[in-house]
Amino acid sequence: MSRAFNFSAGPATLPESVLVQVQQELLEWQSERASVMEVSHRGKAFVECAAQAEADLRQLMAISEDYAVLFLQGGATALSALLPMNLARADQTAEYLLTGHWGEKALENAKASVNTHIVASDKANSYRGIPAQDSWKRAAQAAYFHYTSNETIHGVEFDAVPEVGNTPLVADFSSNFLARPVDVSRFGMIYAGAQKNLGPAGLTIAVIRKDLLGQHGRNLPPIFEWQNQVANDSMFNTPPTFAWYVVGLVLKWMIAEGGTEAFARRNAQKSSQLYRAIDGSGGFYTNQIEVAARSTMNVPFMLHDEALDKAFLKESEAAGLMGLKGHRALGGMRASIYNAMPLEGVQALVDFMQDFAVRHG
Amino acid sequence: MSRAFNFSAGPATLPESVLVQVQQELLEWQSERASVMEVSHRGKAFVECAAQAEADLRQLMAISEDYAVLFLQGGATALSALLPMNLARADQTAEYLLTGHWGEKALENAKASVNTHIVASDKANSYRGIPAQDSWKRAAQAAYFHYTSNETIHGVEFDAVPEVGNTPLVADFSSNFLARPVDVSRFGMIYAGAQKNLGPAGLTIAVIRKDLLGQHGRNLPPIFEWQNQVANDSMFNTPPTFAWYVVGLVLKWMIAEGGTEAFARRNAQKSSQLYRAIDGSGGFYTNQIEVAARSTMNVPFMLHDEALDKAFLKESEAAGLMGLKGHRALGGMRASIYNAMPLEGVQALVDFMQDFAVRHG
Repeated sequence: MSRAFNFSAGPATLPESVLVQVQQELLEWQSERASVMEVSHRGKAFVECAAQAEADLRQLMAISEDYAVLFLQGGATALSALLPMNLARADQTAEYLLTGHWGEKALENAKASVNTHIVASDKANSYRGIPAQDSWKRAAQAAYFHYTSNETIHGVEFDAVPEVGNTPLVADFSSNFLARPVDVSRFGMIYAGAQKNLGPAGLTIAVIRKDLLGQHGRNLPPIFEWQNQVANDSMFNTPPTFAWYVVGLVLKWMIAEGGTEAFARRNAQKSSQLYRAIDGSGGFYTNQIEVAARSTMNVPFMLHDEALDKAFLKESEAAGLMGLKGHRALGGMRASIYNAMPLEGVQALVDFMQDFAVRHG
Repeated sequence: MSRAFNFSAGPATLPESVLVQVQQELLEWQSERASVMEVSHRGKAFVECAAQAEADLRQLMAISEDYAVLFLQGGATALSALLPMNLARADQTAEYLLTGHWGEKALENAKASVNTHIVASDKANSYRGIPAQDSWKRAAQAAYFHYTSNETIHGVEFDAVPEVGNTPLVADFSSNFLARPVDVSRFGMIYAGAQKNLGPAGLTIAVIRKDLLGQHGRNLPPIFEWQNQVANDSMFNTPPTFAWYVVGLVLKWMIAEGGTEAFARRNAQKSSQLYRAIDGSGGFYTNQIEVAARSTMNVPFMLHDEALDKAFLKESEAAGLMGLKGHRALGGMRASIYNAMPLEGVQALVDFMQDFAVRHG
């Protein structure tokens, strides 16, 4: 067999050139005479590799020195539990804007540590859009305002950064990190699991405005105190070195490909092509998300008759299009078209969808 | 160049046959037409891979169904903070026996969540041994009794499982996990970071007696509630899939090599040979640990004149012996000789040490 186009929502497709490099140097990395998996995180070679990844991320996102960049474990879910502990006092309130499953989860993981306040939720609308700003109910003097920049399951993405005044804005960018230029200075914190746009599962990146740290007044276990990670360059304990190394290669690849502006153009092109195919299918395929909130990364769609789902999945796999099964919460299909999905992959999917509709129409 | 013998304390050497397999299937794993890094953790192929790793670990350690086996993130350090939250009520006391750096760290990470009681500490003796049981000061009705089975930095290892009566025994086995047979039924919980005897950094294994879970009466973030991980086969959120896969290959390799009894024999042989070389060097090399507490995994040693350290490190690297620099807390040298270090590696180190002593004696 050969490699197929992989539309999995995460872990997700990676640039083939990165995988080829990982493969080539898997047994002997640089001049270490060992695999990158086997060398000390405190050795010169790995420390340089780690620092280069941070420098490349800072370049790609134009991150100023006012922000710390952390490479952590636990996934965005663990970070969503640690962020109220680190960014809020126990007597403070934090605001949550809910546009899907992951916003709900972030809220649930915060509740034990801070008073939470739901600014607005699109749940009653089945998470098909983004609540209009004039419907928001803000809390006074919140420690931070949390939202999910792209909802991986529902396929809802913010086109612009919400305007929240002086409240520190915190965003889970797991599934659209580096998918387009973002003005980091608008944020108190951005965080993202690596397993969509960045690399293997098991690494989570946090970009945090330094002045927000250390104000929580809590007695935290040292390993959960992010200031300790800042002071130790994310090596307060042993970091996931292999994942960090792969992320570093993906960042280099992104720079070589033209950075976030180039990917924003490509992602717009890929997602428009796919939504056009869905909307132009005469109802054979549907996507219910309000047009302005449609994700450029995760495109859920339904077949007009769910009895066809099985055939669609079987035939798409035979055509080399993998991972199209929708999330169990929604059913149907979902095509995740992250940075590493080439235009050719989306073209192949669209061609298959049109052919399938003709044959089963 | 070629691969060298790697004595790094962790991340550490892995079986070459495992690395070769990882390399061969890096771009296309099984019939997935994608890398193992790229496929969904909820897909059939990965779920089977994950379950096989658990089954193999249960076989290697003879773990009964009374115990859950979890594959988690965060390192042993994060687990040392989560364990009092999960295994003790907030008003309970937990006992800590300190035999080195990692025991101290586990204690520090527990303090925010439980009343801690130091049963005994070897600190005044510079952590060169294990406090005799008749010197222990036990606490009444402790939630658990914690110790560090092998201290990676100090090179102190328990030869036998401590006798603690009915108190659940919790042990950090990070640096001697699967190094010898262990009677799991003696324990309430065993945990270990993968990056010594098991695989890449970023995965931490916990073996927990199920009846100890869910008794804490705390309001924890769901992601920190281990019962949620038990109920979801360690996939309450996206696990570090690549690390889990590599650990699975290492476990298969261990079974093929004869299991923990075979490794116990090899580890005894390797460590005896190295300690003999140190003790027989006429004081050129020294190891200060009490003989009964000497680690079979991490062998710290000093040169009689620290001015020779630089030459020792330079010449040993030239001889293909990497990662021998001691931990910064102790200085000198340290040879970590985990399961994947072959006898030939220890023989090459001993030969080099003897030659070096002759040339610089």
